[in-house]
Amino acid sequence: MGGELCQPRLSQRISRLKSSLVREILATANRPNMISFAGGLPAADLMPPLPMDAITDPSLYQYGATEGEAAYCEAVAQWVSETGLAVTPAQILPLAGSQQGLDLAAKLMIDAGTPMLTEAPTYLAALQVFQLFGADIATVSLLANGPDLAELEQRLAKHKPSCVYLVPTFQNPAGTCYSPEARRAVADLLDHYGTLLIEDDPYRTLALDLTHPATPISALLKRAPWIYLGSFSKILWPGWRLGYLAAREDLMQRLINLKQASDLHTQRPGQLAVSHWLRSDERSMHVVRLRNGYRLRRDAMQAALNRHLGDIAEWEVPRGGLFFWVRLLRHKATRALLAQAMEAGVVFMPGEAFYPDGRTQEYMRLNYSHATREQMERGLALLSTLLRLDGQ
Amino acid sequence: MGGELCQPRLSQRISRLKSSLVREILATANRPNMISFAGGLPAADLMPPLPMDAITDPSLYQYGATEGEAAYCEAVAQWVSETGLAVTPAQILPLAGSQQGLDLAAKLMIDAGTPMLTEAPTYLAALQVFQLFGADIATVSLLANGPDLAELEQRLAKHKPSCVYLVPTFQNPAGTCYSPEARRAVADLLDHYGTLLIEDDPYRTLALDLTHPATPISALLKRAPWIYLGSFSKILWPGWRLGYLAAREDLMQRLINLKQASDLHTQRPGQLAVSHWLRSDERSMHVVRLRNGYRLRRDAMQAALNRHLGDIAEWEVPRGGLFFWVRLLRHKATRALLAQAMEAGVVFMPGEAFYPDGRTQEYMRLNYSHATREQMERGLALLSTLLRLDGQ
Repeated sequence: MGGELCQPRLSQRISRLKSSLVREILATANRPNMISFAGGLPAADLMPPLPMDAITDPSLYQYGATEGEAAYCEAVAQWVSETGLAVTPAQILPLAGSQQGLDLAAKLMIDAGTPMLTEAPTYLAALQVFQLFGADIATVSLLANGPDLAELEQRLAKHKPSCVYLVPTFQNPAGTCYSPEARRAVADLLDHYGTLLIEDDPYRTLALDLTHPATPISALLKRAPWIYLGSFSKILWPGWRLGYLAAREDLMQRLINLKQASDLHTQRPGQLAVSHWLRSDERSMHVVRLRNGYRLRRDAMQAALNRHLGDIAEWEVPRGGLFFWVRLLRHKATRALLAQAMEAGVVFMPGEAFYPDGRTQEYMRLNYSHATREQMERGLALLSTLLRLDGQ
Repeated sequence: MGGELCQPRLSQRISRLKSSLVREILATANRPNMISFAGGLPAADLMPPLPMDAITDPSLYQYGATEGEAAYCEAVAQWVSETGLAVTPAQILPLAGSQQGLDLAAKLMIDAGTPMLTEAPTYLAALQVFQLFGADIATVSLLANGPDLAELEQRLAKHKPSCVYLVPTFQNPAGTCYSPEARRAVADLLDHYGTLLIEDDPYRTLALDLTHPATPISALLKRAPWIYLGSFSKILWPGWRLGYLAAREDLMQRLINLKQASDLHTQRPGQLAVSHWLRSDERSMHVVRLRNGYRLRRDAMQAALNRHLGDIAEWEVPRGGLFFWVRLLRHKATRALLAQAMEAGVVFMPGEAFYPDGRTQEYMRLNYSHATREQMERGLALLSTLLRLDGQ
């Protein structure tokens, strides 16, 4: 006995656990005096006060049901139905944020080697989950109004994915909002191939100047199964961890069982706080305030980007969501730029983190909701200087 | 297009998802006028009031770190260290209840076919998680003071488990509290074979008349890796979902990454509420009140059991935890009894749910913390009548 520590025999999945680039970047972002465009933190000053009465009820101290609080499921079903996706309260499962929906969807669908499809680029924490479960991920390119449809059809036919993960409304990171035609065409293709859709929709409420309807693709499916993920983290109090999934009726029982095995149920006071907000008279005013506040920030970022990077980068102005997706025209390796930027006191998310193969190097994702105007100005000036240095 | 719904190609894991017996029983338990000994609901009248000041701070609205709130990690590290398991705050990871620790431990350790070991009987929701992940589960018999040590050694040598899941203190369902000698012997065996220990310890604070020290086995290990799971659900507010894991230092980063992929982080206000309670002057008085309250309930159940089932069943009086584990001397099929009992208006958990092979039929688990005295009396009288009917 004694002597060296024994090493555990870990699961194979752990060899696929993506580590540290993103965590390192976000840890750096928290250093004092660091200007951060890296994370996706909502603007704290736009969060409404908590409805204290809703959460202090001692009857919420006791265990609750995995299926969730009736008040939450009813209010959220109504909220989701307003998007055009008609669901009943029994089709709503409360989650500890929509990230948990990715975990449950992966548990439902993905074994090691299961073929699946995502957009390229796509949400990095979704990639992390799908890769952890061992998905064999093919991608479809994102164009200005949605995915490349010919490529999508080819991937569905050849790769035969069990499921497709899409963020059709203010995509993270690209900001794309699928056109109504693209939504319809994607739904038809998924129906044709019978492929399950995981539709992630956390940014819908942060619509800044949307010019067309954005009906969830889940609502357009006639035959294909679907799981729709929603979040209150961009609208209310992300630190309380509150989201939900909605799904085709026949999938609900298994998702409930998976949730029960994961953490029994979502904390009850937060469910009550959200349902209180969803039913309150202040809801629509708060959404207006939120959009106005984010629009001002986005426009400030757009102006600063034009000033500092207008001649050496290109981007679309995002119509919602939290990010600019910026392509560098000359300097191609944003990972190398990042190392210098972090030393200079500014941090962003390099594009490679959003691709399953990690090879695309010319993009960077810039968050606009967290930095002040003055930080935007200084941070982008720093990036501009670094990009114009000799040898870049 | 149109016509029949397409069926999804689900993961293999879903075929291992245990469904409905337990859920059915717990659903039945919620019917009006049903007397329930089935669940593990703590006594609501013994939960302390929430420290409102701790949870209303608007700085808690924003996203937090996966690693958790410093105040929580520090207070919990201190709380865990008082058990004899010396840990630093960096070895504490806040969880949405200790159930989530089972999910993370399974993700870390278990692929389909991974050999592991549990007690027989063992906690049913742990079985559910390990089976979902595809563990090849061997068991070791529980005796009065701990596991059968010869059997444990034989299983470690032959089955070569990657990990062992134990509930050494007021085991669920058996109520067993391992003796100090058993703890030491188990630790030595795990050290010898280098087997990772998952030690689940939710009931420790509900010690009613413990006559010996109950040092966590994790604290006695010299070489073997360990993960220790704790919960505040039996002491404070289970509806808020607050627990934690502690682990050997070298396991923490991977567990943090797995937690991040699961739900980003544990809700922050609950962490603050618990750390406030852990540091408050009322803590020790509350623990005394809790133990007194549970002792009264346990003694009432013991008296009622003696009156109604004394001649046809046997059991040990539990020295802590929430359950009596009752063996029927004549009537052997508690599953069949359950069907009749549910019709008669009383529900319990049949023993088979606590064995991986589901074959052991002569036990029932009776919770004593939720029913009133009058319900205990009526419920056990009903069970007695059913057991004495002709043909049983």
